[in-house]
Amino acid sequence: MTNKNGKGLVQIFTGNGKGKTTAALGTILRAAGHGLKVFIVFFMKGDYEYGEFSTLPKLPNVKVLKSGFRQFTDPLNIKPEEKEQAESALAAARKATLSGSYDLVVLDEVNVALEYHLIELDEVIKLIEDKPPRVELILTGRYADNELIDKADLVTEMVKVKHPFDKGIKARKGIEY
Amino acid sequence: MTNKNGKGLVQIFTGNGKGKTTAALGTILRAAGHGLKVFIVFFMKGDYEYGEFSTLPKLPNVKVLKSGFRQFTDPLNIKPEEKEQAESALAAARKATLSGSYDLVVLDEVNVALEYHLIELDEVIKLIEDKPPRVELILTGRYADNELIDKADLVTEMVKVKHPFDKGIKARKGIEY
Repeated sequence: MTNKNGKGLVQIFTGNGKGKTTAALGTILRAAGHGLKVFIVFFMKGDYEYGEFSTLPKLPNVKVLKSGFRQFTDPLNIKPEEKEQAESALAAARKATLSGSYDLVVLDEVNVALEYHLIELDEVIKLIEDKPPRVELILTGRYADNELIDKADLVTEMVKVKHPFDKGIKARKGIEY
Repeated sequence: MTNKNGKGLVQIFTGNGKGKTTAALGTILRAAGHGLKVFIVFFMKGDYEYGEFSTLPKLPNVKVLKSGFRQFTDPLNIKPEEKEQAESALAAARKATLSGSYDLVVLDEVNVALEYHLIELDEVIKLIEDKPPRVELILTGRYADNELIDKADLVTEMVKVKHPFDKGIKARKGIEY
């Protein structure tokens, strides 16, 4: 995709800052514009009404799978159905990656699903190792595992420099909220 | 937009990593999904065939303005027409911001246009100060000026952790390029 040899890279967007999922969405917008076929699975977004869920299907050749639950996932109290959903989402991503039908496969928030032990790290590593050379993979979410970073070609950390939640402290500067 | 008070923030995506423009594009994809009206001006993208130029117009309520030139802008040899184009792009962004017709205005690569002295910092600061409260502004590009960071509500730095261009050094790891 971005690679001049026509080979797909493994990209990771991680870090505590804004822009990880949004960068993946932007990449899809760009990829679809080049006629590429895209599969995106959302691991943790459940059935929230994110804006992208209404616009992604408007793009040509973009297939969307939503996984996860509406309620907050408590990492200290993972429910069996949460693991099942995440495992099923990973299986769908694997199927899409190996199918030959997609140029770009996005695993949104897969890093968080790993951090919460909803899925196995070995399975994600296996997906990277088994992917056809031309398929581009994007993994998003904070807490990217070092083994994944090692396997990836392009890793970007989104770092929070300033966030509205910090505003209380800086209110004296008089910036209107 | 993202603000619960219904007030638009000033967001900056900067840094040397990937994902600044793409995060802005992803935000547009999301915003358009919520029925928001979007104006995006590309300061430095010229008439390259970026994929987003064919997909952005497919989204509802998204207006795109491309500025800049096809050839590489040499910061040590800025041409008058390059300044004129960038100034005109900034004027268009200002008009869109003040028009009341848009909820989100994106100034893509405006930080680079500033770094190259194609436009004046004061003019961008004035745009931020004059923006109607409900309009969300996004400024992208590396080299974000500290005065802009000070004015912004939400600043994210995209940090390069690993990039294929670095691969020469790491080729022994055997990761296929």
